[in-house]
Amino acid sequence: MQEARDIYEMCQNYSTIIIQRHVNPDEDALGSQLGLKDILQRAFPEKRIYAVGKNSDRYGWIGTMDQIEDDVYQDALVIILDCGSLERIDDERYQKARQIIKIDHHPAVDRYGNIQAVYPDASSVSELIADLVNDLPDQLSFSKEAASALYAGIIGDTGRFLYPATSQRTFEVASQLLSYQIDLATIGRKDEEITPAVAKLMGNMLAHLEVDDCGAAYYIITQDLLTSLGLKAEDAGDVVAMPGQLTTVKAWLLFVEDETGKYRVHLRSKGPKINQLALKHHGGGHELASGATVEDLDEVHVMIKELKELLQ
Amino acid sequence: MQEARDIYEMCQNYSTIIIQRHVNPDEDALGSQLGLKDILQRAFPEKRIYAVGKNSDRYGWIGTMDQIEDDVYQDALVIILDCGSLERIDDERYQKARQIIKIDHHPAVDRYGNIQAVYPDASSVSELIADLVNDLPDQLSFSKEAASALYAGIIGDTGRFLYPATSQRTFEVASQLLSYQIDLATIGRKDEEITPAVAKLMGNMLAHLEVDDCGAAYYIITQDLLTSLGLKAEDAGDVVAMPGQLTTVKAWLLFVEDETGKYRVHLRSKGPKINQLALKHHGGGHELASGATVEDLDEVHVMIKELKELLQ
Repeated sequence: MQEARDIYEMCQNYSTIIIQRHVNPDEDALGSQLGLKDILQRAFPEKRIYAVGKNSDRYGWIGTMDQIEDDVYQDALVIILDCGSLERIDDERYQKARQIIKIDHHPAVDRYGNIQAVYPDASSVSELIADLVNDLPDQLSFSKEAASALYAGIIGDTGRFLYPATSQRTFEVASQLLSYQIDLATIGRKDEEITPAVAKLMGNMLAHLEVDDCGAAYYIITQDLLTSLGLKAEDAGDVVAMPGQLTTVKAWLLFVEDETGKYRVHLRSKGPKINQLALKHHGGGHELASGATVEDLDEVHVMIKELKELLQ
Repeated sequence: MQEARDIYEMCQNYSTIIIQRHVNPDEDALGSQLGLKDILQRAFPEKRIYAVGKNSDRYGWIGTMDQIEDDVYQDALVIILDCGSLERIDDERYQKARQIIKIDHHPAVDRYGNIQAVYPDASSVSELIADLVNDLPDQLSFSKEAASALYAGIIGDTGRFLYPATSQRTFEVASQLLSYQIDLATIGRKDEEITPAVAKLMGNMLAHLEVDDCGAAYYIITQDLLTSLGLKAEDAGDVVAMPGQLTTVKAWLLFVEDETGKYRVHLRSKGPKINQLALKHHGGGHELASGATVEDLDEVHVMIKELKELLQ
């Protein structure tokens, strides 16, 4: 990371460093945040270093956040991780900071920060934090805890070395982190854990998923089903990837009814590009993973028909 | 691998080399077999090199086997991979070979072969084949095809870098294989593919899995359910690991009714040792993964009760 020395020197200049990341944190946001906190605290035992943002119910096993008063931001350096846009930073008190460092692997939506270390080819920000340590071997080092948090971040963002962003460098970093005696199997199992209620939702989906001869699949999750399982619409995110495991599925739509009767649509594909279909319904996203919202069941069935036509 | 040079020199002495592995091959058996075939064929273009054994329905995407006549074994060298016991070698014509090389990562049940390269700490035989190439850089090399086959073997035996046998070396080899432009994402998806019928079985299991307050879980797969889905008892193997993803599950029993009314039991655990329970019912295995067979539904319920007592 070419900004490594600049980042280190900026850290040297502050007695308070606050590390933040995006809202609704995933494993990479939390793992890079808590890993970097540990790494900096080892390098600068005398400094006050905090990890700030809402605690995560789902990924609380990676670690917990620090609660700090507004005045701590006075004269502080803020490091913001894994967040390409200003409006998604958790929390907005970052604006009170004296200086800001951004470290990210998303293409920049907002160019912010006195130092901007943005590497879209990296699998994860956790991988970038490992690079930062490796670029400053005389100044920075890993603990077992930091290595565990960064490993969680890497497997979170790569689907445990499944997605194409997994690189030779990703595996090299994983090998290095393992040398710190991290419990790879336990972290891997935590990463793929689901609650009993989500398991029942997944079970319902697998038992009733509709797949046509061309590989078009869909499943509709009703409010009634969610309510009967004690789940919310956002919990459905845990089952979105699963239909991709079926040999017969090429692309799929998961409709999740919200409390107003509209449907949030998750579009996924193994090959055929489905983002045009999302755009047609006021949504958008990547070629193989998009999102949209449709008004009612009629529009749900229009979209199913369009997916089938797309795959024919 | 300390036997690398001996293996290479023995290969030099033969014009026919036949590579075999265990019956019911998994990804590591097939990946190491087809990877090694490709590697040796590149090194010795003039030799006749075969991969022998039954083709795999499930892992046919890794490659296909060669059909050879008995007389090909005359004066041949046979290399047997991933097979600790003689009775599990596919096929038994290996006995006609002039010499035998064994390469394995299982603790030896039978000590066979003129050269025995057995490394129980290796994640997979595919990892060992990569080591063999790396130990002889002037003689052996990877093609993209060999690298792809070996990568499939590694992720098959490690649960895609999940199981504790995954080592720093495993990640180093994965990094190296990726440098041959293998399609990591496609291989990873193939590895976790399930048929629509198995998906329905998994759905049924997740929707109806019984979990008690202590984390004891069980599910009974009846012949009727298997028949209605067009599945056989052995297909249930694809769903055995899944209950481990539930946050609430500590150990689980999967009962699969066979055609005679007996039940094959798969015992799995995240921590509490369950192999004593398997032994009690004339089975056995590892501390966290065992098997047994019980006579009828009464014994099924005895075993469920015993698991619950074990976890209390």
